[in-house]
Amino acid sequence: MKDWWGGRDLTWMLPKLFLVHFCNTSFVMEKDDELIAFLIGFLSPSRANEGYIHFAGVHPDFRGMGIGEALYDRFFGICKQNGRNIIRACTSPVNKASVDFHKKIGFEISNGNAEINGIQVTLDYNKPNDPKVLFEIEV
Amino acid sequence: MKDWWGGRDLTWMLPKLFLVHFCNTSFVMEKDDELIAFLIGFLSPSRANEGYIHFAGVHPDFRGMGIGEALYDRFFGICKQNGRNIIRACTSPVNKASVDFHKKIGFEISNGNAEINGIQVTLDYNKPNDPKVLFEIEV
Repeated sequence: MKDWWGGRDLTWMLPKLFLVHFCNTSFVMEKDDELIAFLIGFLSPSRANEGYIHFAGVHPDFRGMGIGEALYDRFFGICKQNGRNIIRACTSPVNKASVDFHKKIGFEISNGNAEINGIQVTLDYNKPNDPKVLFEIEV
Repeated sequence: MKDWWGGRDLTWMLPKLFLVHFCNTSFVMEKDDELIAFLIGFLSPSRANEGYIHFAGVHPDFRGMGIGEALYDRFFGICKQNGRNIIRACTSPVNKASVDFHKKIGFEISNGNAEINGIQVTLDYNKPNDPKVLFEIEV
């Protein structure tokens, strides 16, 4: 997975527990037995009307083909079937492609506590110096 | 929290999503407004009869007083109320205190794919070179 993300090691984003306990709301897409896209999401245990997308990605060779949108659509469908009409996700403001993707498919940016490049962000989200853009959509 | 864990920064164990979406099955214990213990757990969305304890800790000054056991007991109670009779947790084999704690309160060690110091472990659990001892208990 390192190659997908500019060499960054994002293994910590996918501890085993996500794959074990969120597997009925997470999917992978394969071509010729190779992983080309994935989405890890879950129905919030604490917020009865919400779903949350933790992590999703499309291999660089397969971007721009609507695969990300298809994965999100499938997750939205599972959420709706389970009475979840608010879906949340978050991304780093430096990840412009991710910000644009979420806006394009209809997510709104939640109000934060600061602005970076004109975008509302929540500072120190997971740890100090870790601003995040928070997204929400009603489905 | 760094002081609790021999200087290791375990912020990555507690991304915000755990606090937002698992807050009805997670607790903190405070004394004079200071955090002295916590447990982050959730009812597995994918495994209808299971609960999972992701992360728990007791401040070194307050260990040996039964606080950890009390937090686990409370989580077990919530699990039982919600029809979850299998609870799982995991720890690193080098964390002997954690291994001993789980055994003491009745957890069994699940079969793994290797043995370290006579204890069954699952190798490369979250990433390469990351063996884990997997625990389970019926409540």
